[in-house]
Amino acid sequence: MENTILFKSKQEVEIVKEYPEPIMDVAQLAHVEILSPKPEETIKFFTEILGLELTDQKGNSVYLRAYEENYHHSLKVTESEKAGLGHAGWRARTPQALLRRVKEIEASGLGIGWIEGDLGHGPAYQFTTPDGHLMELFFDVEYLDASEDQKTVLLNRAQKRPESGVPVRRLDHINLMTPNPKENSDFLMDVLGFRLTEKIVNENKTLGTWLSISNIVHELAFMNDPSKSTGRLHHICYWYGVPQNLFDVADLCKENNIEIELGPRKHSISQAFCLYVYEPGGNRVELFGDAGYLIFDPTWKAPIWSDLQQVSDRGIGAGFTESYWNYGTPDVKAPVEVD
Amino acid sequence: MENTILFKSKQEVEIVKEYPEPIMDVAQLAHVEILSPKPEETIKFFTEILGLELTDQKGNSVYLRAYEENYHHSLKVTESEKAGLGHAGWRARTPQALLRRVKEIEASGLGIGWIEGDLGHGPAYQFTTPDGHLMELFFDVEYLDASEDQKTVLLNRAQKRPESGVPVRRLDHINLMTPNPKENSDFLMDVLGFRLTEKIVNENKTLGTWLSISNIVHELAFMNDPSKSTGRLHHICYWYGVPQNLFDVADLCKENNIEIELGPRKHSISQAFCLYVYEPGGNRVELFGDAGYLIFDPTWKAPIWSDLQQVSDRGIGAGFTESYWNYGTPDVKAPVEVD
Amino acid sequence: MENTILFKSKQEVEIVKEYPEPIMDVAQLAHVEILSPKPEETIKFFTEILGLELTDQKGNSVYLRAYEENYHHSLKVTESEKAGLGHAGWRARTPQALLRRVKEIEASGLGIGWIEGDLGHGPAYQFTTPDGHLMELFFDVEYLDASEDQKTVLLNRAQKRPESGVPVRRLDHINLMTPNPKENSDFLMDVLGFRLTEKIVNENKTLGTWLSISNIVHELAFMNDPSKSTGRLHHICYWYGVPQNLFDVADLCKENNIEIELGPRKHSISQAFCLYVYEPGGNRVELFGDAGYLIFDPTWKAPIWSDLQQVSDRGIGAGFTESYWNYGTPDVKAPVEVD
Amino acid sequence: MENTILFKSKQEVEIVKEYPEPIMDVAQLAHVEILSPKPEETIKFFTEILGLELTDQKGNSVYLRAYEENYHHSLKVTESEKAGLGHAGWRARTPQALLRRVKEIEASGLGIGWIEGDLGHGPAYQFTTPDGHLMELFFDVEYLDASEDQKTVLLNRAQKRPESGVPVRRLDHINLMTPNPKENSDFLMDVLGFRLTEKIVNENKTLGTWLSISNIVHELAFMNDPSKSTGRLHHICYWYGVPQNLFDVADLCKENNIEIELGPRKHSISQAFCLYVYEPGGNRVELFGDAGYLIFDPTWKAPIWSDLQQVSDRGIGAGFTESYWNYGTPDVKAPVEVD
Repeated sequence: MENTILFKSKQEVEIVKEYPEPIMDVAQLAHVEILSPKPEETIKFFTEILGLELTDQKGNSVYLRAYEENYHHSLKVTESEKAGLGHAGWRARTPQALLRRVKEIEASGLGIGWIEGDLGHGPAYQFTTPDGHLMELFFDVEYLDASEDQKTVLLNRAQKRPESGVPVRRLDHINLMTPNPKENSDFLMDVLGFRLTEKIVNENKTLGTWLSISNIVHELAFMNDPSKSTGRLHHICYWYGVPQNLFDVADLCKENNIEIELGPRKHSISQAFCLYVYEPGGNRVELFGDAGYLIFDPTWKAPIWSDLQQVSDRGIGAGFTESYWNYGTPDVKAPVEVD
Repeated sequence: MENTILFKSKQEVEIVKEYPEPIMDVAQLAHVEILSPKPEETIKFFTEILGLELTDQKGNSVYLRAYEENYHHSLKVTESEKAGLGHAGWRARTPQALLRRVKEIEASGLGIGWIEGDLGHGPAYQFTTPDGHLMELFFDVEYLDASEDQKTVLLNRAQKRPESGVPVRRLDHINLMTPNPKENSDFLMDVLGFRLTEKIVNENKTLGTWLSISNIVHELAFMNDPSKSTGRLHHICYWYGVPQNLFDVADLCKENNIEIELGPRKHSISQAFCLYVYEPGGNRVELFGDAGYLIFDPTWKAPIWSDLQQVSDRGIGAGFTESYWNYGTPDVKAPVEVD
Repeated sequence: MENTILFKSKQEVEIVKEYPEPIMDVAQLAHVEILSPKPEETIKFFTEILGLELTDQKGNSVYLRAYEENYHHSLKVTESEKAGLGHAGWRARTPQALLRRVKEIEASGLGIGWIEGDLGHGPAYQFTTPDGHLMELFFDVEYLDASEDQKTVLLNRAQKRPESGVPVRRLDHINLMTPNPKENSDFLMDVLGFRLTEKIVNENKTLGTWLSISNIVHELAFMNDPSKSTGRLHHICYWYGVPQNLFDVADLCKENNIEIELGPRKHSISQAFCLYVYEPGGNRVELFGDAGYLIFDPTWKAPIWSDLQQVSDRGIGAGFTESYWNYGTPDVKAPVEVD
Repeated sequence: MENTILFKSKQEVEIVKEYPEPIMDVAQLAHVEILSPKPEETIKFFTEILGLELTDQKGNSVYLRAYEENYHHSLKVTESEKAGLGHAGWRARTPQALLRRVKEIEASGLGIGWIEGDLGHGPAYQFTTPDGHLMELFFDVEYLDASEDQKTVLLNRAQKRPESGVPVRRLDHINLMTPNPKENSDFLMDVLGFRLTEKIVNENKTLGTWLSISNIVHELAFMNDPSKSTGRLHHICYWYGVPQNLFDVADLCKENNIEIELGPRKHSISQAFCLYVYEPGGNRVELFGDAGYLIFDPTWKAPIWSDLQQVSDRGIGAGFTESYWNYGTPDVKAPVEVD
């Protein structure tokens, strides 16, 4: 036991060691924009198989949300020549928290600037990871009221459970590829207050990091990109919270020609029940069947896994595939040398 | 959409409305002490049916933890004439956070004073709720390393999954009875930074409140005590994270003469899969089969349920019983008039 | 151990006690016809919530099947003034088996006669239980091939898993009410070869019997009808085989104003995970979430439960309601005195 | 629709095509004997991880049963130099049925002769498959009453649910390897009345057959043995009936150094949720997490799968491994050329 506080009397103690104050300014991953060369099929997958609801559209983009999400959208699908990440949208805890973080981002040199907003949210500050993944931070959001025929009996649910597909409940996290997971993680930890929850280090090379701004193991993970490409998306993840639903939706995927990459599987890292499929546009989509484990310990020491094989072997069910470690969107046929 | 931020240019925005900065100083419910008139049977229940491990004992108390908890203990069972709550132990986020909260507690007039610590944790500040439930706040904790035969393959797990019973994974929350849920909730919100996530209000009387310091719906709930007794415990809750485990452990309880009060059931409030049993000492123990829903929205508006029947009816499975709304520990045979 | 066979040598044994040869002529419950005063709503429930597919219609009747059933239909919904059982259709094991049973039925005096058939099956012999429930026995069936857009990847599945609702897989059993469960069970055992698997006897009165022609606990149960009405239907049951699906479909029922009577619950008798709802026409529909236990023992001794309360208490989850023991279709407001 | 019966009038029909009378004489797979070079570790696995109970021992053999089995044992573990199948024990439906089958076995030339019995059952007739797997058929069995501390609340359960491990409920099936699945299947179908439920045929070579004497997809399967060895065991299978239990027991296996070969997975053939592990003696043990699909259709046409890859791909979860198609017990390092 580290002793940071010295007991003196019933009335008095003394702090003998201070801890850094954690940055709690970023509250949540609020939405993700993905790019799809086959937007109609992509939307059909998200609505008919995963039960998302189409809430809006504008230009080449369509907005969707899950039935337990009360903002305007958690997913924006934008038509594009290639699949990949459009951007990730984070919501700050307060307006002041937003401005505090913007100041730090600007100081880091990775800031882009403010935009007036988008359907469903107010002014947002755009920036990129060192690797070039586009992100934005905002506070003001539009809550979407359920229409009359979407009314639910549960006051804590945004709208009633859909009857089509095996409906997901909310956006969970994103996983980004980068040739340099450590540098990118450090940026998010130092500037935005993300906390490291697990990592993989092999021969001094960080191969993966799991980063959290809450009690779940991650809102964002970085995975090593062996192709040395930058800015690629590994996957986005939606959440069920119930393990069996993964087998139900996998059955539906098999029957509807949606390619399953791997799983259902119980991860070692995060301990989550998971399933990976490719949406028709080519982006990998993960589905989470439970909450894995939650972290409440404020001095959590991130476990360090020694290699990819260990990470694969210590889970339960299907092991990771070659594609899992290499494929991202946009797809790169040949490894791209960067520097 | 409430507009708190005004867009002016790519370089400039203006805050038009500030939000109160949330208090993020209390990180978790770290342990609970329960009182049992039948400590041996109580411990047998927790170890053989719920798979907790006995980690220590001292005086009339025994210390236990679940296999995914890495502190010294999450449960302290103390022999006592009557069942009930000993105390609830909360861990602060930093040493400084601890002292900030202590200052506020002292100002509230509900502080008791510092104790040197207990097995497994350092100096703790004791206080009570307005209703008299004993609590303590601390920062320094002892991590318990797994012994050689408890080694696990999962680096994010404290020790290997036990072979006995249907083992729970971690302490989840406590539920306290009080004739005045509103007053008690206000204290925890104002002084310790708890956030209201759901509540029941009937004819202007607050009948229940769910309070959170994290992303789960509650670490603590207050329920109306119709007997007007003070300081009673409604239940403590341990977590599985997997719905089916509730049926498995219910089967084991039935076979071993452990009384099931109700469930498995899917709650309306919290949406959690739950089961309520009485441990042999008389305290109610809830088991959670999933994570219910998680709250990431920093401006979450707590839904207000209108009455107990609505709360019961909108869940799935067994409805609430008379005992559920009335029984607490210590048991009071006749309603006690307080004022 | 009862010794029916005496060992004499490696080459010779002697039977010292013969056992009656079991009647194995009836193979399965192939379909059920229910009557509904609100056929459109009934069909909407079965197709949109339970994922049945409409395969045909004729006159006032609509025919449906589940996605793992390969006959023309397992459910016939016929418009009628009152809810209730139309008839139950049983398939014989061979053409000869059919005629053997018909001969016995005729001898029993409960035979009605042959009909030419119906959509989906050939000549059928109609008869009633002593209580007056209409039944038919046949052999020739029409297999329904999946259409092009119903093609499944599973060669052992009739058509692909539907995308709507939480789709059931097959008809499981029926439960009939009668003032005289014993007499009705004896008829089915003696004449058709049903085997008794469990029963409830209280003060020499048989209150319920579970009867099987296969390895599941029952294709048919008789329950005491306290109203002394005859020919009433207690429920029909469809099968999921996966416990979690009961919570999924219960969620959908709650959201769509389908009344849940009780459950999800784990039965004591049959050990099955179950859920009871009322289809909009008023008939009770049970959903089975697993296979309960299966019986392979050819000399199975049916356990005898002592009363309804014991049956309720020894299950897990919601206990039986007053309605459960009393309500059947057609509904009878006041108890009808029969003799 | 094949018309086997011609309707003439309400009083008369005519059979225009007879069907062969099925042989219903063998009722169940009652027990299996496995050979283990490490009997103590094997027994520890079955009792501590799978929750079997040790009921007896004699010579080099130990007898075990699962908590929902009411005979003396379903598993006999016999110490032996090499792992493998001891024998499979089948129970006939009646004493007469037993003698009918013995007569047919003797006629087939594969009979060995009668033995006086074993612990838990009476006189048994021994025989082999064409491939040399030892089997026996008997009728008289000893029912084992639960001891006082094993008393259960469920009258349809043999003894109370064990508190250790993730307890299996009953023996489900065996899978045997042979260079000639077709010949061996034909023997069991012709002589003992097994029914073909599914098969794999590739380029006119039968690679696998699933055979049933009940409503489950198989009590016995034959798989092609690429090593051309004879008499090998592929696996024995115990049943949970609940999918989640597979993840629970897999977790326990990982933690206790029990090698998982593959799964949890949902099979294409049989549609069962499954998990394959190696017991410490080297024999493969499958665990079934549900009932898959059940067959009630008396004229079921066995689907024919075209190759092993198709069988693997159309399931859900982990694909089959090289070991799965090749490993059996006793292990053969190099392929053994037989003819």
